[in-house]
Amino acid sequence: MPSLKETIDQIQPLKKEAMDLCQKKLNNLTKPPGSLGVLEDIAIQLAGITGSTSPSVKNKTMLVMAGDHGVVAEGVSAFPQEVTPQMVLNFINGGAAINVFCRHAEAKVVVVDVGIVGDFTHPDLIQKKIKQGTDNIAAGPGMSYDEAVKAIEIGIEMAHEEVQQGAALLGAGEMGIGNTTPSSAILAACIDLPLEQIVGRGSGIQDEALTNKIRVIQQALDINQPDATDGVDLLAKVGGLEIAAMTGVMLGAAAHRVPVMVDGFIASAAALAASRICPKVTPYMIASHASMEPGHQHALRLLGLTPMLHMNMRLGEGTGAALAFHLVEASTRALEEMSTFADAGVTSS
Amino acid sequence: MPSLKETIDQIQPLKKEAMDLCQKKLNNLTKPPGSLGVLEDIAIQLAGITGSTSPSVKNKTMLVMAGDHGVVAEGVSAFPQEVTPQMVLNFINGGAAINVFCRHAEAKVVVVDVGIVGDFTHPDLIQKKIKQGTDNIAAGPGMSYDEAVKAIEIGIEMAHEEVQQGAALLGAGEMGIGNTTPSSAILAACIDLPLEQIVGRGSGIQDEALTNKIRVIQQALDINQPDATDGVDLLAKVGGLEIAAMTGVMLGAAAHRVPVMVDGFIASAAALAASRICPKVTPYMIASHASMEPGHQHALRLLGLTPMLHMNMRLGEGTGAALAFHLVEASTRALEEMSTFADAGVTSS
Repeated sequence: MPSLKETIDQIQPLKKEAMDLCQKKLNNLTKPPGSLGVLEDIAIQLAGITGSTSPSVKNKTMLVMAGDHGVVAEGVSAFPQEVTPQMVLNFINGGAAINVFCRHAEAKVVVVDVGIVGDFTHPDLIQKKIKQGTDNIAAGPGMSYDEAVKAIEIGIEMAHEEVQQGAALLGAGEMGIGNTTPSSAILAACIDLPLEQIVGRGSGIQDEALTNKIRVIQQALDINQPDATDGVDLLAKVGGLEIAAMTGVMLGAAAHRVPVMVDGFIASAAALAASRICPKVTPYMIASHASMEPGHQHALRLLGLTPMLHMNMRLGEGTGAALAFHLVEASTRALEEMSTFADAGVTSS
Repeated sequence: MPSLKETIDQIQPLKKEAMDLCQKKLNNLTKPPGSLGVLEDIAIQLAGITGSTSPSVKNKTMLVMAGDHGVVAEGVSAFPQEVTPQMVLNFINGGAAINVFCRHAEAKVVVVDVGIVGDFTHPDLIQKKIKQGTDNIAAGPGMSYDEAVKAIEIGIEMAHEEVQQGAALLGAGEMGIGNTTPSSAILAACIDLPLEQIVGRGSGIQDEALTNKIRVIQQALDINQPDATDGVDLLAKVGGLEIAAMTGVMLGAAAHRVPVMVDGFIASAAALAASRICPKVTPYMIASHASMEPGHQHALRLLGLTPMLHMNMRLGEGTGAALAFHLVEASTRALEEMSTFADAGVTSS
């Protein structure tokens, strides 16, 4: 399996020539030039990623990374930690929102245990547990540097396996009670904004708990002093196991020249870390939705990404990405199935 | 076939009890309450429309209304009038963006000639031509009051037929070179804003043509003095045949308690006219995307609708609505397929 270092070395820029050819192809299709907006941008991006002006993203996989967070001991979440394995079982049984939206998009769901607390096992749960949850980041680093590399490499490995099996579009989803806290800490380390502007209510905490959450994040930053120029250090000190694995999925996708859909706030924190590990990864990313978490817009802005869906969602799991699969596929189908001005006998202005 | 008057009489408010039951059902599903955002709003709206907490929108039809506009003689469009029948033939042959996106959403496309200039016929084109295009609104009314009622009733009839055949979600699309001009005129008559803020480039006119388009719209308003409180008068004096038919689709959908997806700028003008004919129609509407046409946001605001997709599209045809079909269907599938906290054994905070 490729190491993190090998993976970084494999990530190359998009193919300019294919992008130019794709732009020409789009201009010949029966529509005013540019009138499909973001769908045309995506088509060109996919051409640059794949080198083809007829890219297909029919085979899609959502990689859901699961892990727990010692920081929940600080009272940062509306839900207790036991919900992580409960929801993971729900994923396996196909009853969660991510399952419904992936079935709707005809995408495969793969669930990976990177660090769920407890000894929960299931034949359909991919077992890659590094340890019993990320340590409490308010009391010290969430994990060692080596553990962070290992967690990233799990994501790389999973992306590799899915691409080997034919996946042409990946999504990085997550389950981990408490994980908006490390995500906020990662973002806070990368941006010069007061915590009040980037920390949100996660799954639904009230005002008092939000004040406490901000205090806990400040403490995590003060104690750990993460280096924002080093994505691995960010993930190790104030991140989380499943977040690091999502970072790995994104790096792995890019190394294989496969596009990767960025979901909500947690995914954007993983993407930020990925971009600090290897800036060449961001052209492989496609933003899906605008989360209600206030930090999300800031993270996407740092990444230079713009979301397509504005639906006031704040569920996580990868649900926004799953809904946006349909749109990315629509762009490839437009490229492939729309007639040209010449073929259709339509006057091109 | 129901007349306009009978149709208006049939439109009733949403069913509050079903909406409350749907809200309760949503709160029991395995997700933080409200975390699916707009998808939950849509689920509740569909419950209110259909009276069921398990609504299905699997059968979807896009009704594409086509017609020409005498006002193109004033140089308001980037494309010549001959493109209307050319694109309609493209629709029939399945090569346009609307066909691709409807295939992708598994929706049926029905194309109706309400007033294409010329004698173009095709076995797959539904022939309902009222006359050879809407008259030049810069020189007088686009049509008589009776013709506007007739055009609306064509939309009502088409909605009726599709619902009879099982459609549970309708979209109103269009083809008509020049039709952002009458749409802008309809909006301008309903809103107290300078034309510069609501008139856009349509399929892509340059600065000089835009200045001319604004002048033409002002002239149409001055000459015709449409009554903004009378939707039929609006459509007759400064609207268009296919726009009136779209208004009819929306009224017909509501009369049958079927939701209708509002597309971009032209559709929002048709929706505005519908709301002036019968204010009870708007709760049956779902907004899809935010068009690049500057008037679109104003029209949606007047209607109290918020779009889900932000993709810088400006193609029309019904393309934004077709892309959003997937999202509406996702809300019904979440309602139907997600497990409850009790069934999945998940702690509900």
